[in-house]
Amino acid sequence: MAEPTTRWLTSEEQHAWRLFLTATQTLFSAVEGQLQRDSAIAHGYYEILVRLSEAEGRELRMSQLAEASTSSKSRLSHAVARLEERGWVQRLDCPTDRRGQVARMTDAGYAALEAAAPGHAEQVRRSVFDRLTGDQVAQLAAISEAIAGGAQPGETPICPLPCDNELDE
Amino acid sequence: MAEPTTRWLTSEEQHAWRLFLTATQTLFSAVEGQLQRDSAIAHGYYEILVRLSEAEGRELRMSQLAEASTSSKSRLSHAVARLEERGWVQRLDCPTDRRGQVARMTDAGYAALEAAAPGHAEQVRRSVFDRLTGDQVAQLAAISEAIAGGAQPGETPICPLPCDNELDE
Repeated sequence: MAEPTTRWLTSEEQHAWRLFLTATQTLFSAVEGQLQRDSAIAHGYYEILVRLSEAEGRELRMSQLAEASTSSKSRLSHAVARLEERGWVQRLDCPTDRRGQVARMTDAGYAALEAAAPGHAEQVRRSVFDRLTGDQVAQLAAISEAIAGGAQPGETPICPLPCDNELDE
Repeated sequence: MAEPTTRWLTSEEQHAWRLFLTATQTLFSAVEGQLQRDSAIAHGYYEILVRLSEAEGRELRMSQLAEASTSSKSRLSHAVARLEERGWVQRLDCPTDRRGQVARMTDAGYAALEAAAPGHAEQVRRSVFDRLTGDQVAQLAAISEAIAGGAQPGETPICPLPCDNELDE
């Protein structure tokens, strides 16, 4: 039962929320479908490869990668293990933190990302940006920033020292 | 490698897309977390209960429910089976379509939804609507409608005849 203090959504908010749920489900289903079909990469894995490709030395601490992808550490660990099996990522011990590990993208991983990127960009354009005006793109950015709040993935500093040692395993 | 015809995102689009990805991950993680923690209901299951609660007779054909939730039929089938195990939903044969089945919400399911709704509404308000202006709520609705395209969940007609027969199992 509703408590007297429940702050229910107004009808405008309810309407916006339902459209937003439908939009995100439709959109992420299309983006996931294209990446899986054309490149056999899950969208979450693609995002990990993007983050690594942009980092200095194409490497990030696992903890930084987890923040950047807003994934839990255990889920990220699983994803990176799958990417390692494909030879796209290596896990290395970080010399500045004995408990920490660093994920580094391999040349094969970079090539896989390069091969997948055009089809993915086309899908994101079709699913989102072909459907929006320039004003709406700016509005979407502002709304997303407000919802994301303090979380700013990709802005976390990378491992402060180069981590050149190989993985122990 | 990029084909010459690849329609890459502009820097404004890239910026908006990344913020949108962060916002949706942050938001859905918070919404899922609250529902699981306070009501032990996955967000996708909650959405199924909402759809059923609003349908005439609190029942929908499985195929209509699948469209309404933009889930695949197999995923929906799994979810409804879990809801049936909890006694919140019953599956019945539909008399107008021998291959079709109807999902009907039970009183226990309705009570579970009623109990979960205030906490969920509060979370959606905190994660989204407390952070947006009235103009942004309208913008979010318009942007979502453009992205959702033709998909209009909840507007599919329900089973045209009452389905009062019990499940065979």
